[in-house]
Amino acid sequence: MIIDGLQCGHFDREAFQSLQKAGVGGVVVTCGFWEGAVESLDSLGRWRDLVRENADVAEIATTADAVDRIGRSGKVAVILGYQNANLFEGRIRFVELFAELGVRVVQLTYNNQNELAGSCYEAEDSGLARFGKEVVREMNAAGILVDCSHVGDRSTLDAIEASSRPIAVTHANARSLFDHKRNKSDDVLKALGQTGGVIGCAAYRNITGDDYCRSIEAWCTMVARTVEIAGIDSVAIGTDRSHNFTAPDYAWMRQGRWTRGVDYGASAAGRPLKAPPPDWFQKVEDLNVVPGGLRAVGFSDREIAKITHGNWLRLYEATFRKQ
Amino acid sequence: MIIDGLQCGHFDREAFQSLQKAGVGGVVVTCGFWEGAVESLDSLGRWRDLVRENADVAEIATTADAVDRIGRSGKVAVILGYQNANLFEGRIRFVELFAELGVRVVQLTYNNQNELAGSCYEAEDSGLARFGKEVVREMNAAGILVDCSHVGDRSTLDAIEASSRPIAVTHANARSLFDHKRNKSDDVLKALGQTGGVIGCAAYRNITGDDYCRSIEAWCTMVARTVEIAGIDSVAIGTDRSHNFTAPDYAWMRQGRWTRGVDYGASAAGRPLKAPPPDWFQKVEDLNVVPGGLRAVGFSDREIAKITHGNWLRLYEATFRKQ
Repeated sequence: MIIDGLQCGHFDREAFQSLQKAGVGGVVVTCGFWEGAVESLDSLGRWRDLVRENADVAEIATTADAVDRIGRSGKVAVILGYQNANLFEGRIRFVELFAELGVRVVQLTYNNQNELAGSCYEAEDSGLARFGKEVVREMNAAGILVDCSHVGDRSTLDAIEASSRPIAVTHANARSLFDHKRNKSDDVLKALGQTGGVIGCAAYRNITGDDYCRSIEAWCTMVARTVEIAGIDSVAIGTDRSHNFTAPDYAWMRQGRWTRGVDYGASAAGRPLKAPPPDWFQKVEDLNVVPGGLRAVGFSDREIAKITHGNWLRLYEATFRKQ
Repeated sequence: MIIDGLQCGHFDREAFQSLQKAGVGGVVVTCGFWEGAVESLDSLGRWRDLVRENADVAEIATTADAVDRIGRSGKVAVILGYQNANLFEGRIRFVELFAELGVRVVQLTYNNQNELAGSCYEAEDSGLARFGKEVVREMNAAGILVDCSHVGDRSTLDAIEASSRPIAVTHANARSLFDHKRNKSDDVLKALGQTGGVIGCAAYRNITGDDYCRSIEAWCTMVARTVEIAGIDSVAIGTDRSHNFTAPDYAWMRQGRWTRGVDYGASAAGRPLKAPPPDWFQKVEDLNVVPGGLRAVGFSDREIAKITHGNWLRLYEATFRKQ
């Protein structure tokens, strides 16, 4: 079984069926990028409807046990996540309320600095702000996993320190392997490794680089090098794959409502739209080559199980509220 | 034990202690009048904090069994209610989300017509609108009690018809006993009685009248006459008592953000502020005279138990979601 630490886009029945064919038993879905509380409740409502309408292939999971059970039953466990903290609208009390509604993963900030933390794209990362520290503690208590994928390195290190539970970088790579603002320093990866945190290795070309996208063995070599930095218990998969994304979706993802101009996110002016997926990952179904690829670069069955799902399950068990 | 079908105001420790002295084991509190979704989530957050801080005297109840258990233990069971449907912000999917957060009673509209229904103060009551029918059905499914206290008679009759479960008029009186727009026609009360619904007799002077406020026996005579109209299984208590209300609270309650002018709600230009409580109900604690008053006007112990708490518990059991 594969657990994918982060995907986004407009899921539909076909997406769930592709994930089934890929051997993906659990996936953290992106319920929002910039949306405030009301729009985030809208999104939760739509996700509930979508999953209810596809109950034979998908089910919302709110505990590690449920992810494991649903995935092993052959369905896709949907874990509700947000790539930004805007859903809380500056309210400490909203953390518990959204947790009760099933939200299990929240990224402290997305591409821009917010009231919680600095972003990987800001010239200066402030470190974790006052409200950010409050929210991290509240997420610990409410049972939501802290995600720092788009968060700046300094704020990420602060979050690791502030959090009483291990945290995640659900979808990024090691910057020492591919130099990109969205990727993480070795310091961050080592701190993750020392505290029980997990990084989901991304398969998004913009932050992976053409070399590691060339073949499944190349990508698994990147995973192996990440394991050398963070340790075997702290590396997993977070493809950052999107479903049914079109130009307006990328515009919303990158520009939201914060600029009248253009922003390229992880991309660059030269190729502003969707980067082509890795050569080995043209279709969602192709993700089923990962276990074999990990074996080809030398991982044992036990290590493969940790990378493909075991590390995420352990982290979910350590952080998700129990109901 | 007394269950009060509706109170409002700024609750505090003293309010809970007064309710304990009054023998009130359960109360529907007003978490909002005009507030939208975000403000309503704020209110839920504050209510949770307040009850957590006073866990020795109060506890939030989300089932009929919990109301009964908490009340019998000597604490006050807090049932979360809203006097308006603005918390849903026009979203059918928000009904389930707020139900999961513990909301158990929602009035279809407050003093003004809204997208659900007509109000008792409008010149013309439209009857239940399209969205109102959707929300009633969704509340039935989600396990929230439909309240029509401030709703117009026509919309109330429509709601009784549209609802697959019995509904409530949590705080009003019989218009044939005291003529006021806020009170209900005998047709409404009989329809309530025939469908298992319940009216909570109010002890708010503006809609009760000076005669029935003169003594506890007088007020209980009004209750007895209401029983003659609606039946012994459909009459309970809903005092409409407020705690720590000041002029700005009355202004918000009556004018919200909907007018630059002045509105008097159930009051009149002559006495725009708070009407004096009934003579027998100067302090919250005084509510403990109700069982004796009911006995004095001829009710049996079994009938008194229905009016003071049994009818509400039966209705809660029939309408509240089970967790």
